[in-house]
Order: sequence, then C-alpha cells, then structure tokens
Amino acid sequence: MPSETIELRGHIIDSLILPKVLDEIIARGATFKIGEIRIGENRADQSFARIEVTAPSADSLDELTLRLRQHGAEVREKKSLKLAPAPADGVFPEGFYVTTNQQTFVQLEDGEVEVEPALMDCAIAVDRAAKKATAIKFYGIRKGMEVVVGQQGIRVVPAQRSTSRTDLFEFMAGNVSIERPKSAVIREIARECKRAHDEKGKILVVAGPAVVRTGAAEYLEKLIEWGYVNLLFAGNALAAHDIENALFETSLGVHLEQGALADEGHENHLRAINAVRAAGGIRQAVASGLLKRGIMHACVKNGVDFVLAGSIRDDGPLPDVITDAVEAQKAMRARIGGVTIAIMMGTTLHSIAVGNLLPATVKTLCVDLNPAVVAKLADRGTFQAVGLVTDIELFLRELADCIEANR
Amino acid sequence: MPSETIELRGHIIDSLILPKVLDEIIARGATFKIGEIRIGENRADQSFARIEVTAPSADSLDELTLRLRQHGAEVREKKSLKLAPAPADGVFPEGFYVTTNQQTFVQLEDGEVEVEPALMDCAIAVDRAAKKATAIKFYGIRKGMEVVVGQQGIRVVPAQRSTSRTDLFEFMAGNVSIERPKSAVIREIARECKRAHDEKGKILVVAGPAVVRTGAAEYLEKLIEWGYVNLLFAGNALAAHDIENALFETSLGVHLEQGALADEGHENHLRAINAVRAAGGIRQAVASGLLKRGIMHACVKNGVDFVLAGSIRDDGPLPDVITDAVEAQKAMRARIGGVTIAIMMGTTLHSIAVGNLLPATVKTLCVDLNPAVVAKLADRGTFQAVGLVTDIELFLRELADCIEANR
Amino acid sequence: MPSETIELRGHIIDSLILPKVLDEIIARGATFKIGEIRIGENRADQSFARIEVTAPSADSLDELTLRLRQHGAEVREKKSLKLAPAPADGVFPEGFYVTTNQQTFVQLEDGEVEVEPALMDCAIAVDRAAKKATAIKFYGIRKGMEVVVGQQGIRVVPAQRSTSRTDLFEFMAGNVSIERPKSAVIREIARECKRAHDEKGKILVVAGPAVVRTGAAEYLEKLIEWGYVNLLFAGNALAAHDIENALFETSLGVHLEQGALADEGHENHLRAINAVRAAGGIRQAVASGLLKRGIMHACVKNGVDFVLAGSIRDDGPLPDVITDAVEAQKAMRARIGGVTIAIMMGTTLHSIAVGNLLPATVKTLCVDLNPAVVAKLADRGTFQAVGLVTDIELFLRELADCIEANR
Amino acid sequence: MPSETIELRGHIIDSLILPKVLDEIIARGATFKIGEIRIGENRADQSFARIEVTAPSADSLDELTLRLRQHGAEVREKKSLKLAPAPADGVFPEGFYVTTNQQTFVQLEDGEVEVEPALMDCAIAVDRAAKKATAIKFYGIRKGMEVVVGQQGIRVVPAQRSTSRTDLFEFMAGNVSIERPKSAVIREIARECKRAHDEKGKILVVAGPAVVRTGAAEYLEKLIEWGYVNLLFAGNALAAHDIENALFETSLGVHLEQGALADEGHENHLRAINAVRAAGGIRQAVASGLLKRGIMHACVKNGVDFVLAGSIRDDGPLPDVITDAVEAQKAMRARIGGVTIAIMMGTTLHSIAVGNLLPATVKTLCVDLNPAVVAKLADRGTFQAVGLVTDIELFLRELADCIEANR
Repeated sequence: MPSETIELRGHIIDSLILPKVLDEIIARGATFKIGEIRIGENRADQSFARIEVTAPSADSLDELTLRLRQHGAEVREKKSLKLAPAPADGVFPEGFYVTTNQQTFVQLEDGEVEVEPALMDCAIAVDRAAKKATAIKFYGIRKGMEVVVGQQGIRVVPAQRSTSRTDLFEFMAGNVSIERPKSAVIREIARECKRAHDEKGKILVVAGPAVVRTGAAEYLEKLIEWGYVNLLFAGNALAAHDIENALFETSLGVHLEQGALADEGHENHLRAINAVRAAGGIRQAVASGLLKRGIMHACVKNGVDFVLAGSIRDDGPLPDVITDAVEAQKAMRARIGGVTIAIMMGTTLHSIAVGNLLPATVKTLCVDLNPAVVAKLADRGTFQAVGLVTDIELFLRELADCIEANR
Repeated sequence: MPSETIELRGHIIDSLILPKVLDEIIARGATFKIGEIRIGENRADQSFARIEVTAPSADSLDELTLRLRQHGAEVREKKSLKLAPAPADGVFPEGFYVTTNQQTFVQLEDGEVEVEPALMDCAIAVDRAAKKATAIKFYGIRKGMEVVVGQQGIRVVPAQRSTSRTDLFEFMAGNVSIERPKSAVIREIARECKRAHDEKGKILVVAGPAVVRTGAAEYLEKLIEWGYVNLLFAGNALAAHDIENALFETSLGVHLEQGALADEGHENHLRAINAVRAAGGIRQAVASGLLKRGIMHACVKNGVDFVLAGSIRDDGPLPDVITDAVEAQKAMRARIGGVTIAIMMGTTLHSIAVGNLLPATVKTLCVDLNPAVVAKLADRGTFQAVGLVTDIELFLRELADCIEANR
Repeated sequence: MPSETIELRGHIIDSLILPKVLDEIIARGATFKIGEIRIGENRADQSFARIEVTAPSADSLDELTLRLRQHGAEVREKKSLKLAPAPADGVFPEGFYVTTNQQTFVQLEDGEVEVEPALMDCAIAVDRAAKKATAIKFYGIRKGMEVVVGQQGIRVVPAQRSTSRTDLFEFMAGNVSIERPKSAVIREIARECKRAHDEKGKILVVAGPAVVRTGAAEYLEKLIEWGYVNLLFAGNALAAHDIENALFETSLGVHLEQGALADEGHENHLRAINAVRAAGGIRQAVASGLLKRGIMHACVKNGVDFVLAGSIRDDGPLPDVITDAVEAQKAMRARIGGVTIAIMMGTTLHSIAVGNLLPATVKTLCVDLNPAVVAKLADRGTFQAVGLVTDIELFLRELADCIEANR
Repeated sequence: MPSETIELRGHIIDSLILPKVLDEIIARGATFKIGEIRIGENRADQSFARIEVTAPSADSLDELTLRLRQHGAEVREKKSLKLAPAPADGVFPEGFYVTTNQQTFVQLEDGEVEVEPALMDCAIAVDRAAKKATAIKFYGIRKGMEVVVGQQGIRVVPAQRSTSRTDLFEFMAGNVSIERPKSAVIREIARECKRAHDEKGKILVVAGPAVVRTGAAEYLEKLIEWGYVNLLFAGNALAAHDIENALFETSLGVHLEQGALADEGHENHLRAINAVRAAGGIRQAVASGLLKRGIMHACVKNGVDFVLAGSIRDDGPLPDVITDAVEAQKAMRARIGGVTIAIMMGTTLHSIAVGNLLPATVKTLCVDLNPAVVAKLADRGTFQAVGLVTDIELFLRELADCIEANR
C-alpha cells in the first residue's frame, strides 16, 4: 500500500492540529505510524511530528494528503508545483487545487510565494514571470491562464491559537453562546473595536433589515458617526427599511401606540424605494435633502463606503443595489482588504456570503436571535466566527454604550 | 335533527366571539340560522345575536353547546345545573364539567354564583347550603362532594377586548414578537409594573436558571429591593445557581477572563447546595450570615414570598424545594390571589405550570430567547400571554433601568 | 370629522372580514357606526353590512379606506379611478396604489376590469384604449404609462374561506404545525397533488440544497418522472449539490461509512460546477452524457422547466443560473401562470421570493425543520401558506410513497 | 509556585485527552512542561505523556489537578484517599469529591476499588470494611458515612474513542445533525437496537407526549411488542395522552377531518385521567378491560417496566405517577442497570433528568425537532448523546420499518 511521510510544525497539540490530522487519517481508512515527535517543553515552544501515512490506494493517499495539507501538514519530499492552462474563460483545468481561507504558499522554482488573497473556494492562478500567485474565482479565470493542479508544492499555514487567552475572538471561535453573560462579551467586543479603530484596522458591518425593524438603527448610526464602522455590506431590504423609516417618520413610539401589530402593509416601503429611484440613488437623495437621517444617510455623510447586494426577494430595488450576484461578490471582495473585524447582524444570506470572502484571520462576530444562523456560518467554512445569540437591538445599544464610554 | 337556540351578548364582533362561534358550529358539522342580530351602533355599545344551531345528533349538539358556552354563548332556555357526587376521594363523577380560566357562573336555585377561582382544567364543586361554587383539582375532591356534570346552568364570560388600545398586554396577547423594537415594549411593561406597584397589585416573577447564567441576577435583585417583585416562583436550579454565585464569588468577569468556555463542572453547584442543606435552608443560611447576596437573599431580606418547585432533573435539592409536584402546585396556587402581572423568564416547565394556575385576567409576559417556549404557553391554554423573544439579561437590564427612571 | 360609508358583502362574518374591518378602524383611531347589517340565515347565504366610518382627518380617512378596501370593503359613493403618468422609466408617479396578491378590479369609464396578474407590491398600469389593467413591478414601468394613484375606483375581492372543510390548504392556511400527525397531512397533500395532476393544474416545487444534503433527491426525482412536478425554482446550490452527487457517486451510504462527520470540503462541489461550466450548461451536460442522474437530469429528461436564481453566496455559479436578481424574478414570474400548488422545501430565500410572486389563490405549502422559515413567509404577505415543520427527507419519502400508491 | 507531575496513558492524542489537558492548564492560568512523551507507533498502541504542571497557588493547583483527573490524568506521586464522615443525614462533608459519569476508581489501603455506579454529580461513600465505593446522591447519605474528600487517591478512566469507525454512537457523539441523510442514520440505529436485543442489552425509551400527539404511538407500540423496548421512562403527559387516545378513539383521521385546528380543549384529557384514577391505576385499567390499546397497554401486556415521573405542569396526575421528584429519580436509577441504549424522544425535562443518571458508556440518542433540546443535553454533561433533529413520527415509523425488516 502506498505511503507518504508528512511533517507538522508549530503549536500542533494545543491548536488541535495533531489530533485533527490523526483523526482525518483514520476517518479515511488509512493508517499511520509516528516516526518522531518532539513537544515543546514550554508553552511558547514549537512542537514537531513526523508521521508516515499509509492508504489503501494511490488515489486515496492523494485525497488524504490534500486534506492533511489543509491542516498544515507538509509532505516531506517536496514535489514541485504542477500547473495546467485554463481550457476556456470561466473554466478551471481538471484537477485544480481548491483553496481554503488560510494562509497558503506555493513553491515556485525559485522560492515560495504567498497566494493572495486568502480566499476560500478558489483556484490558484500563477504568473511565473511575475512570481505571483492569486486566488481566483470562476469569473476571474481566462483561457490559458496557468492554474495549480493537484496538491504538490503547496503549503498551508493554518491560523494557530495564541498561547494567551486575552483574545475573545480567539477563544470563542466556532462557538455559539446562548446562556452566557452577554454584557461581558459585548464589553470585550467594544474593546476589540476600539483597538481596531485606534490601530487603523477596518471594521466591516454586515447588516440585515432586522437592524431597522428592531429599532436598532440609531445605535448603528452612532457607530458610523464615531468612525467605528468603515464599511457596510447589506442588501436592498436594510437600506429600504432604513429610508422608509427616515422618510415617513414612522417613529417607533407611534408605531407601538397606533398598533404595532396591525397589518402595516408595504406601501411606505415601496414609496420609499420609489422616491429614491426618482432621486436617482441614495447619495443623490442625501444631496438633494430628501434623505436627512438614518443609517444610509450616516454612511453618505461620513464617507463610509457601502455595497448593497441584491437578492431575488427584493422589492424595487433601490438604484444603488447591485442586482447581479457575481458583480456584487466582486464589489464586496474589492473592498475587503484591511478589514480586521467583521460584525454580522440579522442576515443569514449576507453573513454566509461575506464569510466566504473573508480570510480566516478576520475577527468575525455573528449576532442573531436564531442560533441556526451562527451554526450555518461555521458549517459553510467560516470557522473563525464567534456567535452571539441575542437581540440585535439590545446588542447594538449596549455596544454603542460601551464604545461611547471609552472613546 | 336536534337544535338549540343560543344567544350572544357583548362585544361579540370585534372581540371575535361571533365569528368563533359560527366557526365552531361549522367545524363540528352542525348548521346555524341567525334569528336576530343587533350590532351596537357605536363602538362602546353592546351587540346581540340569537342563533339557532342544528346538529346531527343530540350528543353532538351537547358537545357543541358545551364549546359554544366556553365562548360565552348562553342557551336560551336555561336548564338547571346538574350535580353528581364524587364516587371516591380524588375522582370526579362521570361527565364532570371541565373549567376554563375564564370567569364562570353556575345557576343555583336561588341565583347565579361565581365559580372561584378562575382556574382551568378543574371540576366545579358546589356547596348548595353555603351557595358556593369552587374550581377544584383532582387532589381536592373528596368522596360525596357535589360536582357539576354536563353543561347546563353554566355561564362563561370570556374576557372581552377593551375598546381602547392603551393596554399593551391586551393588544399583544397571544403574540410572539421577534423582529420588533423591544425597547418600546419594555418601556410599556415598566409602566404596567409601576401601575401594578402603585395600585397594590401583586407582581409575580417566574424565573429559570438562565436568569443567573446570563448574568441578569443583579437586575432581578434590584426589582426585588424596589418592591417590584411580590412573589417568586422558581425551581431548584434558579436558587442553586444563584446561591453558587453568591457563595463562590465566581464573578462574571473572572469567568470570562479565565475561560468562560472551559468545562465548568458541577462542583461549586453541588457544594452550594450542600452548604445550604447543612444550614437547614435558605432562610437559615441568610440568618446565619452564610448567604449575603443574590436573588434568594434579596427575597428573604425583603420579605418576598417564594415557592421553589422540584423537578426530576434537580441536583440536591435545596431543603426549601417542594419535591412533590402536587404539593408544589398547591403551594403556588395558594399564593396566586391578587397577582395582576406575571413575568416569566427562561423556563418552559415553570411557565406552563404557572400559566395553568392563572386566571385569564392576569397580564402575562413570557420572555425567552427561544420562540418555541412562548408558543407552547399559548398552546397549553394561557392565551393571554404576551411573548417577547429576546435576551433575558438585556431584557432585565433595560426593565430595571426603565423602572428606576420612573419610580 | 370626515366620514365615509363603506359596504361589505359576502361571507363577511365567518371569513372574519367584518371583524377585521372593525378592528382596523379602531386600531387607526377612527370610529364606526353600523348602519345596516344582514347576516345570511343559512351558511351559504351572503351577508351584508353598511358601516359609516369617521376618522380624525381627511388624510387618515383616506389611509384607512385604502386598508379597508384591501379587506374587500367598497366605498359607497363610487368615485372614479385616478391615473397619473409615470415620471420616468422605472419610477411610479407619487401616490401610486400598491397591489395585494388578492383579486382586484379597477373601475374604468365603461365598466370594471380585472387587474392581472394578482401580484403583490406592484403598481397598476392602465391601458384605457385596450381596457386593460396590469400589475407592474418597478422594472416594467416606462415613462408616461398611466398608473393608478390614490385608492378610488378600486375593488379588492379577498379569497373567502369556503364553507366546507374538505380543503386542507384552506383550513390550515397561515398555520405552522409542529406537534401534529404529519402522515395524515402528507396524505392530504398527496391527494391535492393528484387532483392538480389530473386536472392539469401545474405543480411548482421550490427547493433548497437541503433536499440533496438530507438524501431526499431520489424522491424528488420520482415525483418529476411521474409528472408530479411541472416547474422547479431553485438556486445554484440545489443544482450544484445535485450534480456533485450525480457526478462523484458519493452515495450516501459511503458517506456515512467513511465518516459523514469528517470535514468534507468543497472540492467536489467546485469540481462539479467546473465540469458543467466546461460542458456549457446543464442541458448540454445531459446531452453529452456527462450528467446521468439526479434532480436536474430528471428535469431535463422529462421536459420540466426550471429557473435557477443566483445569490451572493453562490459558488461558481453554474452557467444556467440567472445571476441578476431582477432578471431571475422576471423569469420566475413568466412561468407562474397556471400554477395551482406550490411546494417549498428547505429554503428561506427562494420561498419568500416565490411567495411574493404567487396569487393568494395558489395552494402553498412550506416544509422546513426550522419553524422560523414558515413564520417568515406568512409575515412577508404569503398568508395562504401552510407550514409543515418536519424533516425534508422523511416528508418527501412519504409524499412519494403516498403518490405512488394512488397514481 | 507549586507544581505537580501528572501522567496520561492510553489513546491520549486521538481521543483528544492530551489537547484537552493542555488546554485546561492554560485556561486556568497555569503552565506546563512536557517531561516525556511517547506516542504509539501504530494506531492500536497506547501512548504516554508525563507533564509537569505549575500553578500560581496551591489552591489553584488543587483545583486544576481535580479537573485533569477528570480527563484521566494520574498524579504521579500517589497520595492516599482522604475520607471524612457525613456531618448529618443528607449532607456531605466539606470538600467532598464530585463524581462524573465516567468509570472511576478509588485507592484503598489494599488496592483499587471501582466506584459504582458510574453516576455524575454524586459523592463517593466508602465502606472500608466491605471494600466498596458507592456513588451516592444527597438523599442517600446518612450521618457518619465515610465520604471521599479532596481529590487524592482517585483515578478516572474516561471512555476512549475506539479506533474503528463502525460505531455510529461513537463517532456522532456530542453532535447534532440537522442537514444529513436521516434514513442512513436510522438504519444504523436499528442495527444497534438489534444488536442490543440479540445480546440481551436493555433498551430504554424516554418519551414525551409528542410521541402520541404526532401520531407515532403505533410505532412505539410495535417496538414494545417486538421486545425492542425493555424500559420506559416518561411523565404523566405521555401516559395521559396515550390513554386519552385509547379510550376516546379519537383516531387521527377523524381529528384531521373534523378540524385538527379547532380548539380541542382538555376535556377528554381530564376524563381519561379520571377514568384511570377511578380504576385505581394503569395496570388495573388494563386488567379490567378498560384500557385496550396504546403504549401503556402494550407495556403492561408485554411486561415492560415503566416509571412515570411527575412534574408541576401535570394534570391529574394518573395514580401511577411518582409525584415526588426525588422518589422518581430513585425509581429510575434503580432500573437503569443493564441499559445499553437509551432513546430519548420529544422531552427536554426527562431527557436531561435521565441523562444525569446514565453512565457515559450508555449509547444515548436524543430525537427532537428542536435542536436546542439536544444541545442542552450535552451541555448538562451527557456528552455521549447523539442528537437527531427530526420529526418524531417519521423517525419512529422508519425505525420500526427497519427493525421489522431485520428481526
């Protein structure tokens, strides 16, 4: 039976890399023999393991090695990268390597090159002349481009858990908290936001219409005004609800008084959209004085860039909405560089879509009343996401309070 | 085919009584003919309808009439109440009438008598000599007591919706709100609590351990200290978590810092229970100075009566817990008189159990992150419950803020 | 204070139209006086009510009347329809009337014309010369088209509940069932499907990827082969999962054996998409023999039309996916005519999007493990939807069994 | 700073024991130094690690060592067991050791003794004369009994994951599956049940009223008749619903036809309870011929032992219900010996209560439509539980089919 020797380096035990690797081997019907293992005597030391893996067939060994590489394993006898040309525009060559959202390197003839950006579910296009390797989506590929095939000559460096416990995002990653003191967690997040803000990291907010419907818009507006939101990704619904709220002054108290439970209809919603369509867009509606408050107004006034991505359930949509899904992905991807914190609230669709575009190193928080949303995000590969099952209004209110107290 | 004439009086159209009655008739395969209908010309006027109901058989007509009475229909030719003796202790006579949580009257020879209390799922025991009618559970019945059988001579007066919209509990009843501005609703609840407090109504809090686990205990303590909680129903878990928290000073910040995600174990939980067992009970633990803070401590210090009802998943339990389910029901029932507001948080079991004991007139709020809890409550007959799907910590924090601002 | 007289006709009491109307009046701070009321003596007879409505201001009266019309109220003094030209392409004139998904008529000079289709959240464009009235979305409006403004001259005829109880969709509408015998409900649905099939009604299936992931694809394939699916609306994910499953023969048993819990990765998913991109599309992949089984294969082989609508979380996408949200809406809308049953499974996004496009008369079933999905659908205006909270695999398996037994 | 040397043996890497131990050390602010590590060269070989742990204080070192022992760590310098007498009936001595549900040994003077049963949240009472160690709940302790205090002289042997993947319960443990092919999983469970049945293992079913309300009772009856249920734990609600269904022949089809959505009331429920109260109990009702079908009838007829544990939300209750929570726990605990599979369906309360009583080695399956139930079970310490988020009726139907096909 074919076998291969792999090596693991780093915090391979406490980052669960070694156990995951051994687990993967067993799960795929292969066997292993540990050749050498050295575990750092102190916490900060790196560890090392050399493991001989034997699989039932060459194919299954290949498949397995691919997986192990994604956990950070290096194959001992380094083989050189294989490249094949894309057969047509928008089509990858057979056997293309599929990226993760972890830091990845490819071995070119004269040294290793980092693949950029760290974007999942892409192929890697290599420009040997320029010594560049790029993670590329289907829409980016052009006939003849050289693309990595197979799994040789690739090195993945998974984010390793730090030895300190001071980082909320690190030690809550992948975790969905329900019964837990939220105030303490929100204070931590406020501190992370302040850190990002002070160190010029970009804070991305991904928001669904629940932010407006629950009455939390005013707190998000404040964060925008204070410079604590640098980028907003949302859909037509968030913007339309926000503008409806701004134009028709259906203030929340009145809603409640007059019967929050009465069937509200969609008239104002559609009239708000129509008004912005007539104005030519959100920025124009702000410029003309039509739109005087709300989240979108705050974005325009404070120069916060936004992408509104369309979906098939949209009414309208607003002229600013990018209705084409691929174009919307490109627009979001183009703005993501430099983002260090992503806060996702009240939207499954946009949370997963944006999660797919983020490197594993972005601190990602997903807030929703529905625990399923958070679970889905991790399921779809955004393992670093911290989930907070709570009320969006109360979350944003408290976050704004904490940030205000410390800015 | 047998028929019967029923009459409806009151706000029969806008309280949906007439439609419900017609619906019930159709649903059970009967037919109706409206003899007379007078609808109040103005909103405040009462309406009247006389309906002839025809059913396929005498049995199905009886069955149907029973239902219609529960919606407030009166049978025109009043027949006299039928009584039968209980055949044994704890056993009702065959054909016993089953109560709802609505106001109910029985027709005795010399006039109508109100059944007390307005308690669902009971039989009605009648003491003709004393002219008293009592809703009675299985455990209360003794051999030979006279019990209402059949459905004649009974009048139910369902709570009718008021014509004003100023009452949150009335117009949100039976509704589960998820995407809605919680702050506005919480302000309303704070106002209702203040009204109850000022008018000497009793506020009942039913709380699960999530109140402590989410870090909300301090807000509940404040409400108790301010006199905004007059009665606490809970289980062993709430009290044990609260006391664990009080004894071991595992303050929330420390938890978070040291790793809120680490497997906490049950040691402290069990040690807390053991300490109170050794002391002889919660009141003794307060008296001896062992227990110095927390929800239970606040109850003892402020003379707030509490009932801790046991369940099979309890550890311990604490000596104060009533482990027998029937005894616990009796203890809760005995204290419910005078309650005008019930706030239920973070417990399905206790919410439903207490819901079963409340008259339909008690303003009932159920707060939980899980929408299913609230839905279940209404399903089990507590139709008046208003559901708030939100975070308990953030809810209690804001409620305490609102009450503090206005007291 | 301004007042107006409205009239209601039909099954206004048992269809809850009268109570809803009175409720709406109160909820908006207006008052009413019932002038005349005649309730059909027998169930089948029509009823009639004349109500004088008084509101605080002319504006609020207008707003209220609009609402009441949507419940089927007719204003007594019929005023003629008001029209205004669209000010620009894609923009409605101010004050445009917003449609519901109920049957609607407009009063032209020489008679009433039905608005087609019965589509919610549209404006009504009127072609007076051709005597046609069309519900039109923003994208359909061109500068100068005549559009209904205000609320006069419009008559809405809400679907009224039938007097029989034989129709599952009618009596479960708007209801989410969790604890209920599912087998009985599924048998009913199978019967409805057979009826639709025999009477040449079209059955629309809206499906999310969970249909494949739960292993239910084979049952959906059978329904397609038997002619019980006439139209499929889905997204890229359903088709890609289905094709991945077809191409890589990752049969479910093997998955389970080899470790269904292992991190499966997205390689096969992306390779499947790449293969279809290389082939040029799904139909081409079937024609070339690449795609030999699965749901999409069954659609192509059996001539079942499908629309795949894109979203921002798609990988790829497949060449058949319509990535533009507005174009996808148009494509779905164009095919909806003749649909009598819509079965939605495992997708919030597509269920709501399609729900928005359906007339209120289409029997709509929404199946999902998550009760929130079903609740959302009704929330967004698809009031007729019946919700079934259950496992998609087990649902489809049993539905296929029931249909097979009776076809 | 104080330090201690611990040793780990067994499948410490692939069972995640070593990573968990290192994680725990860091999480509690301690440090470690790995003295020696030997990892089995082949999968089947045992591994070994010796680790020096240093903590900030003697107290925190003690606390930490206790935790590490629960993960299976042995302290190198074995110290002898410390015992203290119970100060009063029902009270443990201060510092009592709290058990887990893992296999545990105590070091007596003349050798190790296994603590029985493997029951969580107990103290360990030691009878030195008889060389017996017993896990004991608060209610079992009597003044003067010798109880283990501190953490010395105790050895915990956590269940280690087997090296094969053939065992569903093992590789799905702690996992909640939603989007996954249920049929395949159910087939596996059927196979496990057959194995237990053939090998004389006991199958315990824990069932909530949803089993009856969803129409699944008939399938559970079959399992009972075939000898695939050896023990039934439930509450008053399951039995009362089942008996109501049996007595009033409210067969499901009729329910559906006559309006499953009509407000059914609780009459039949209470009449069923009354009838059994009059008969004297369930067994008597079967003997007298009153009760002729249903789950409880099948239990009586087939000699399947059952425990009905009361709760505060019970109506009645039935005479067979143990209303005292502590007595009910004892009754369940007394019957649990020999159980190898536990299937829990549709009840949070009973699932958690029974989970608390089971050793970690019992294969535990929890079936519920609500994912939160399953998550809670693991949260409360029943780590071995496999969760299946699905419809109870469809689950039981398919399980019965699979078992029937193979018995």
